[in-house]
Amino acid sequence: MNLIDGKATAAEIKREIAEEVAQIKAGGGKTPHLAAVLVGHDGGSETYVANKVRSCEEVGFHSTLIRYEEDVTEEELLACVERLNNDPDIDGFIVQLPLPKHIREERITEAIDYRKDVDGFHPVNVGRMSLGLPCFLSATPAGIVELLRRYHIETRGKHCVVLGRSNIVGKPVSMLMMQKGIPGDCTVTVCHSRTKDIKEICLQADIIIAALGVPEFLRGDMVKEGAVVIDVGTTRVPSDKTKSGFKLTGDVAFDEVAPKCSWITPVPGGVGPMTIVSLMRNTLLAGRKAIYA
Amino acid sequence: MNLIDGKATAAEIKREIAEEVAQIKAGGGKTPHLAAVLVGHDGGSETYVANKVRSCEEVGFHSTLIRYEEDVTEEELLACVERLNNDPDIDGFIVQLPLPKHIREERITEAIDYRKDVDGFHPVNVGRMSLGLPCFLSATPAGIVELLRRYHIETRGKHCVVLGRSNIVGKPVSMLMMQKGIPGDCTVTVCHSRTKDIKEICLQADIIIAALGVPEFLRGDMVKEGAVVIDVGTTRVPSDKTKSGFKLTGDVAFDEVAPKCSWITPVPGGVGPMTIVSLMRNTLLAGRKAIYA
Repeated sequence: MNLIDGKATAAEIKREIAEEVAQIKAGGGKTPHLAAVLVGHDGGSETYVANKVRSCEEVGFHSTLIRYEEDVTEEELLACVERLNNDPDIDGFIVQLPLPKHIREERITEAIDYRKDVDGFHPVNVGRMSLGLPCFLSATPAGIVELLRRYHIETRGKHCVVLGRSNIVGKPVSMLMMQKGIPGDCTVTVCHSRTKDIKEICLQADIIIAALGVPEFLRGDMVKEGAVVIDVGTTRVPSDKTKSGFKLTGDVAFDEVAPKCSWITPVPGGVGPMTIVSLMRNTLLAGRKAIYA
Repeated sequence: MNLIDGKATAAEIKREIAEEVAQIKAGGGKTPHLAAVLVGHDGGSETYVANKVRSCEEVGFHSTLIRYEEDVTEEELLACVERLNNDPDIDGFIVQLPLPKHIREERITEAIDYRKDVDGFHPVNVGRMSLGLPCFLSATPAGIVELLRRYHIETRGKHCVVLGRSNIVGKPVSMLMMQKGIPGDCTVTVCHSRTKDIKEICLQADIIIAALGVPEFLRGDMVKEGAVVIDVGTTRVPSDKTKSGFKLTGDVAFDEVAPKCSWITPVPGGVGPMTIVSLMRNTLLAGRKAIYA
């Protein structure tokens, strides 16, 4: 069993990005600038956004954090999106999800100029990804594919089973894995809550991408010898063994599954750290106008 | 074995659309208006466009056919798209593909206002489909799903194997089949030219959607007893038995496969006739501004 070290890979990519930013600055170019909009004070969202801002500093980007209280109206938020769309110094921005219930998330997502949509959630970016055209890839699927690429894991002709059909992981990663190219060219099966015989299907998989959000769903007897397992789950399970009072738990019963795997990602330290560097990479591409003019 | 009669279903849907158009007109509403742009004189394209124009007449739409010679420039075609985008009388329009090699198809497709993109090829419509949002569904996937719906074929929890990963059939139909809802909620496997063990995978399928474009690819020994088989193939194979000198041939070896099926679509007369009514349906929705304001 070999561990796919997402933390080390993410650190390596951050160094590469920092180097590129340094070159841009040395050449008199514009420093990439990411803005993040945070509504309310949800603990998870606070942590994610703080990590994004810190990563910006690490790679040498400018960053701007815009905060709204929980009671912000949809119109106020749309006005903020519009300002960011029109601000020439902002290369890319994100509105941290989830949003309060009185705000329609898709209205906000679609209001973002797709050329600044570094989260890759706008329909234009989702559609272009599906069509195999250059776009901002959403962070988690992009992070998964980048791990497979950097670890030279063979995907062509392999059977990849994706557990979960969410808009932010299951569906887009299934599209990327079936795409022509490397990584890609997989036969892809997407399983979800309605799937029967999920164990039998998993047992056929050369690569399993677990993104159901069900802690330790994938057990040892569901995985064939030599499989590659990518664990996207990050459920906060209460724990009396940690300072924070919870433990990040993946969708994979690691202790049972790992001994059978050729490669496996841990939680934490696997896919998680890769999502933020995917966002950094998109911001760099946005700053360079590498995808959209 | 039961035949899924696409021709009869398409005729029924056309009658429903014609009735709705008659009501709109009776109420003083605007007659839906579809424009089709045809470049050159390719035999297949000529036939498709002629069928679309005739279908418009049958359901009571206005239609406009705009022709260009093979040597039209990209700029001229983009100017035409722009005119149609801005013409308030045109509810929807299509540019018949394929286009001559000197024209970048994706540039044309993306120039079409997505609110008039009744072919459903624009990234916004592809992305919204993937996200499960209201959109113009592209014609062939929409036609397949509509056949399953009208024949009350159970899809929930079934294993659907899609053969082919094209942008116009394989990928979008796989997204629709895995979507929550009815039809949908399938476990979906997408196979393609790089797939190993394609026979074993097909033998597990409750539903097979064959869209490889390889005549008679799916043989009798690849299908389990009771499967539902949807044949999307329409390859023109030379034949001395027809007036036209060719025979439309599906991806399914019908004589071998049909006896094992619970339901099967023939070629011709299966999925083919449904694609044009999907286009008519989208045009009606565009006219009513039912999807985009």
